[in-house]
Amino acid sequence: MEKPSIPARVGQPAVTVWLTGLSGSGKSTIAAELERRLVALERPCFVLDGDKVRTGLNRDLGFSHEDRTENIRRIAEVAHLMNEAGLIAITALISPYRADREMAREIIGAERFVEVYLDATLEICEGRDPKGLYKKARRGEIPDFTGVSAPYEAPQAPQVTLHTGKETVASCVDALLARLKGNVVYKD
Amino acid sequence: MEKPSIPARVGQPAVTVWLTGLSGSGKSTIAAELERRLVALERPCFVLDGDKVRTGLNRDLGFSHEDRTENIRRIAEVAHLMNEAGLIAITALISPYRADREMAREIIGAERFVEVYLDATLEICEGRDPKGLYKKARRGEIPDFTGVSAPYEAPQAPQVTLHTGKETVASCVDALLARLKGNVVYKD
Repeated sequence: MEKPSIPARVGQPAVTVWLTGLSGSGKSTIAAELERRLVALERPCFVLDGDKVRTGLNRDLGFSHEDRTENIRRIAEVAHLMNEAGLIAITALISPYRADREMAREIIGAERFVEVYLDATLEICEGRDPKGLYKKARRGEIPDFTGVSAPYEAPQAPQVTLHTGKETVASCVDALLARLKGNVVYKD
Repeated sequence: MEKPSIPARVGQPAVTVWLTGLSGSGKSTIAAELERRLVALERPCFVLDGDKVRTGLNRDLGFSHEDRTENIRRIAEVAHLMNEAGLIAITALISPYRADREMAREIIGAERFVEVYLDATLEICEGRDPKGLYKKARRGEIPDFTGVSAPYEAPQAPQVTLHTGKETVASCVDALLARLKGNVVYKD
């Protein structure tokens, strides 16, 4: 991956850390901890959490395939604007389809797009079930639920893979920061 | 106007400077100069220009009344996210309807919303006609063109009024910065 240019106005190479993984794989948790660590390092950043954005910018969107793609498109456009403004963007959304993540990569720019795969098994994610969504999906109350009744297309060549089913949050974020540090987050 | 809270991660009170005025009243010019001055003051900021956002986030929207409102809603939501991230947002779009600007104020939060009216007469704006749009509108080639065939509802109580038809860009931005400085941009 090429090193991105440094926007003058904040003075850091801004990237988008695109977290993808099953529901329950730890996206929001990793995003929040990465944000906390970056803030401590005085690296301006911002989390775009899929669930939260659905109550604001994307409140008009549902869960049809078309609306899910539009959800991802808009979040990628906002991440792009935040990168242009010099912020590190951290996105936390399942984004199960390769084609949608490719679209996000194109919008954001390949040199700024860091795809991070949260690799936890369905069994572990379903065992956690923090929002009770898997239970509902198994009862047929949620159609097209990723991992149950809709596919999750794992990244084929992610920049980073985090084993969030086996490692602690702190250890995953250490690994992620180390990877970002060597490549994109810090000025040379 | 109450002083907004200071987001910890950038360390400035983030506001949205909402520029409204006729086509040709100087919104993009004032936005660019305000951005330049804020960057020089090391105040992280970002311009959301209506025309530019229409090539990205809002590329799916047209110019029907419904789409114009959606255009403003999304830009207000992005400005809100940027404020949450600690950036000063500067928006440059005609936003001719009071109801739409009220919606923006609600989304962004009244304590962060700085409405700036670029008060230049239609004659002056039409005389400038930087994009040749007034000529097209007069020929009937653009329906519902603000000031010609659609209304512009001037703000009734803007935080700042800039006389962009009479004053220089530098003088307008001086006045705007002085108003911001006293109220919101700088830490006490």
